[in-house]
Amino acid sequence: MISLEPIGVIRTNRTEPDTTPVQTRFNWEEPGEIHLNAMYSLGLEGLEGFSHLWILTWLHRPGQPTGDEAPVTQTPFLLRPSGETKGVFAIRGPRRPNPIGLHLVRIADVNLTPPIVYFHGVDMVDETPVFDIKPWVSEFDLPPEPHIRSGWYDDLDVQHTTPAELAKENKEDNS
Amino acid sequence: MISLEPIGVIRTNRTEPDTTPVQTRFNWEEPGEIHLNAMYSLGLEGLEGFSHLWILTWLHRPGQPTGDEAPVTQTPFLLRPSGETKGVFAIRGPRRPNPIGLHLVRIADVNLTPPIVYFHGVDMVDETPVFDIKPWVSEFDLPPEPHIRSGWYDDLDVQHTTPAELAKENKEDNS
Repeated sequence: MISLEPIGVIRTNRTEPDTTPVQTRFNWEEPGEIHLNAMYSLGLEGLEGFSHLWILTWLHRPGQPTGDEAPVTQTPFLLRPSGETKGVFAIRGPRRPNPIGLHLVRIADVNLTPPIVYFHGVDMVDETPVFDIKPWVSEFDLPPEPHIRSGWYDDLDVQHTTPAELAKENKEDNS
Repeated sequence: MISLEPIGVIRTNRTEPDTTPVQTRFNWEEPGEIHLNAMYSLGLEGLEGFSHLWILTWLHRPGQPTGDEAPVTQTPFLLRPSGETKGVFAIRGPRRPNPIGLHLVRIADVNLTPPIVYFHGVDMVDETPVFDIKPWVSEFDLPPEPHIRSGWYDDLDVQHTTPAELAKENKEDNS
């Protein structure tokens, strides 16, 4: 076992996982804030030169259904309308053996004292603990290959973007 | 404090951090393997449809200089030639408050039993613990903005790609 201590917390206007969009891309303009512990002020030096950021979080409230153990196969939120299942490592959902979230956001402003990063792109509930932030670097984060396959996501026609809406769509189909 | 248990381990031919390239992009063809614990076999179902993968690791051997605490400002490997310092959250290096590694790799093959993912792109030493793997999804992992700024990385002229070579370049400049 490895023990980690969060470096700060995310502040958003979202309080319920079920009505929070499942990816930042589906909610790209909504603002949020990262509040780091005061000891990390100088850790933000140089971040203002970047336009985008990775936030690594602890997904402490993964939404329904919950349980102690993340199922090895599950129906991702975005496949709720069809009910298909996938392996947990072929999906991006929050119910994982180690629920570490990876969130791409756009930097709006960086404040050193107190250390706060203002960003756009919200798919996390208020008070989500933060493990790490890393700048998005095009040379490192973009595959160099011309052909990229994103598996079942490539076939997706996204109509709804919150778990609650996606569950509702499923019920309507089956009724 | 939050406790995490690795889901598996990375196998590579690299044993020394100092002579291992600092990003997968600098060593994009070298093969490596993710060996997951047997209980996660079905978790890989559907992953074969993706061309690229994120690996989230525990950077258990961050290389020199080491210490109990990651400095809040530090000289990243790639700036060793000039000796400049940056805030830890404006760099991608392995010495971090929570040393969680984020590695983009290209999937070569997926085996379910035993659960092994064969990949290309090596910047991790052998036996690196794995916390999570997530498929790379172009819609989620690529900023939609036409203009992306990658801070000090944008001005970089990378000649060497391992910590040892980058340290040597610094010594030669100063001699």
